[in-house]
Amino acid sequence: MLARIKALQGKMNEADLDLVLIMDPRDVYYYAGTGQPANLVVPREGDPILQIRRAWDFAVRECYFDQKFLLKGGNFKNLYHKVESLDYPRRHLGVAMDAIPASLVKKVEESFPSCLLFDASPLILSQRSIKDEQELKMIRAAARCYEKAHEVILNELRPGISELSLSANILAAVRGEGADTIIRNRRWDASLAPDGIVASSKTSWQVSGHAMTVTGKGLSAALPWGASGETIEQGDLVVVDLGINYQGYHADVARTYVVGEADQKQQEVFEQVYSLQEAALQSIKSGVLAEDVYWLAYEKAVEMNVIQYFQGHGEMQGDYIGHGLGLEIDEPPILQIDNRTRLSSGMVFAIEPKLIIPGWGAVVLEDDVAVTDTGYTLLSTVPRRLFMVDA
Amino acid sequence: MLARIKALQGKMNEADLDLVLIMDPRDVYYYAGTGQPANLVVPREGDPILQIRRAWDFAVRECYFDQKFLLKGGNFKNLYHKVESLDYPRRHLGVAMDAIPASLVKKVEESFPSCLLFDASPLILSQRSIKDEQELKMIRAAARCYEKAHEVILNELRPGISELSLSANILAAVRGEGADTIIRNRRWDASLAPDGIVASSKTSWQVSGHAMTVTGKGLSAALPWGASGETIEQGDLVVVDLGINYQGYHADVARTYVVGEADQKQQEVFEQVYSLQEAALQSIKSGVLAEDVYWLAYEKAVEMNVIQYFQGHGEMQGDYIGHGLGLEIDEPPILQIDNRTRLSSGMVFAIEPKLIIPGWGAVVLEDDVAVTDTGYTLLSTVPRRLFMVDA
Repeated sequence: MLARIKALQGKMNEADLDLVLIMDPRDVYYYAGTGQPANLVVPREGDPILQIRRAWDFAVRECYFDQKFLLKGGNFKNLYHKVESLDYPRRHLGVAMDAIPASLVKKVEESFPSCLLFDASPLILSQRSIKDEQELKMIRAAARCYEKAHEVILNELRPGISELSLSANILAAVRGEGADTIIRNRRWDASLAPDGIVASSKTSWQVSGHAMTVTGKGLSAALPWGASGETIEQGDLVVVDLGINYQGYHADVARTYVVGEADQKQQEVFEQVYSLQEAALQSIKSGVLAEDVYWLAYEKAVEMNVIQYFQGHGEMQGDYIGHGLGLEIDEPPILQIDNRTRLSSGMVFAIEPKLIIPGWGAVVLEDDVAVTDTGYTLLSTVPRRLFMVDA
Repeated sequence: MLARIKALQGKMNEADLDLVLIMDPRDVYYYAGTGQPANLVVPREGDPILQIRRAWDFAVRECYFDQKFLLKGGNFKNLYHKVESLDYPRRHLGVAMDAIPASLVKKVEESFPSCLLFDASPLILSQRSIKDEQELKMIRAAARCYEKAHEVILNELRPGISELSLSANILAAVRGEGADTIIRNRRWDASLAPDGIVASSKTSWQVSGHAMTVTGKGLSAALPWGASGETIEQGDLVVVDLGINYQGYHADVARTYVVGEADQKQQEVFEQVYSLQEAALQSIKSGVLAEDVYWLAYEKAVEMNVIQYFQGHGEMQGDYIGHGLGLEIDEPPILQIDNRTRLSSGMVFAIEPKLIIPGWGAVVLEDDVAVTDTGYTLLSTVPRRLFMVDA
């Protein structure tokens, strides 16, 4: 993890930042190795300071810093005094402005009087976008949890079961495998449930909430996405889209199931979605522009004459084909129109083409891949098929 | 809900705010009735404007505003133009500074050029602290879900089961009852899992993470609270502390279980915790100071000579006895040292005394109550006992 601090210091030099104050729990975990409440100050050069707000004994065991760079409590003024006492340069201070509430940033401004504040999120998130071997291993472990969900679905998806009951059983199975039950989002107002989306033909084409995908309708207006109370019927197409947090790292996998034999249209739409995913996957390798992965799938959708259903329909049509994954379920870069970021080896993406047909239903196929110099490695493990369950 | 807008307008007049821009999803739901992504502008007088960022059809069905006060999209400049076109006064603008990220507040500042910004959170949260009949009904429904968890615990808590397995089964049961699986927090960096805390004698006295209570150790340093992989043994004390989100409203209930017959100390410590809860409960009624509820329990702990274990031990000793509940699991007022807020009829609190004894374990008893003019009404339904399961 010292390598991560060093790499950040390199980026800070380029961006002319003297200090970065890291408070977002995922960022702290990434750079300091602890999930305990803490503030981490990284100077342009020299040792970082970790201010441990609570659970001192746990945090000291988990982090790898020398005790003389540890502080107790959450007082920003104490933290600033420590920065002064170490004589670290302190004019330009970076803070993750997208993640930290305005009132807290104001407190930082008042407590770091010598500093001008800048947004450090782009630096942090671009560094986090490239995963090391250990991180890839964690994402693989998260993706593997979908196998257990899949087993439950094959066993329990039958006419008469509700979306809700199926989601409860999936959740218990994935939790039993050791998944955590909080799905992390960078975006302050995004939230996804640990049982993901379970949506049948009645609900899967109705796009609700902040995510532009198959969302389900949820149980009430308070949380209008996820499984609803609807009963699943013979012949239904059922989309299961599951974010999985395994010891801090996320996978995001979706499969579509048919209750009974797939009819011709269901089979055909699945094959189209498969072709869209193939088009995206075949384009992936280090050096490619993020938006080009989207455009290749888009062109395939035009070619197959399904563009009106591609990634949604009407006003609820998304302009992306996938997103980064890691300590959060949806990280930059997004494979989206106008994103000119170049893919790099070690980036991880969920590739999630879908066709959402009003009044009919939806097919989603979502897999996780790691970018390599020559292509990609598939991290998710369940076969990329349309599954039919006995009904 | 129009009454809620009117009440906010009253508070805005007192605080000399011309406009409040509401963006936090729970606040939007409270005032507009929709959980879809939206921005709500409330003027000092006149009709509010709802800017619906996504899922227009859903939001229009869920909210109760006249179409001419609805806007589509998320552009703040369009929203400001609408405010101008309605000729609403626009000097002092309130925003929830504790909930909204700094970068978004900056965008608001740039897009509302005539406005000076103020923190509107105290107004909103003090209004939200007093629940109406419908809200009390929802919290009762949430609290009732604990009955299902309790049934699972009585059936499945046995020597040899892991904290993790028990938590998975509790989660499936509560989800099956229709609970949502995202627990809402106001505090930007707080997070609680929908399977709450399951902690046995080995883990329950180790306080980890941001909450000062029985936290469990969790499964990894990435999320170091909640159930661990530890196996529960004969004679263990097991604390189950469950936050439940039912259609937007939360309950927070905890019980302690013994695997087998309780020994004398376990029984004695439970009785002490029961007495602490009684001391707090007996003090509750409209007009009492929030901190006094804490102090009465504190004095009881001194009297019983257990003050060193009261609400934790050593540095991890909390200075509260309970907290508000509603659209979030932990809302103001907190029943805490130095909180001079007076309780009002309609406030809802979780009352959660605990004794946490290093190396031995912990007993927690947590119930939800609504304040009345003369006392309180109990909203949680499971008997306030120490439960012994056959082993």
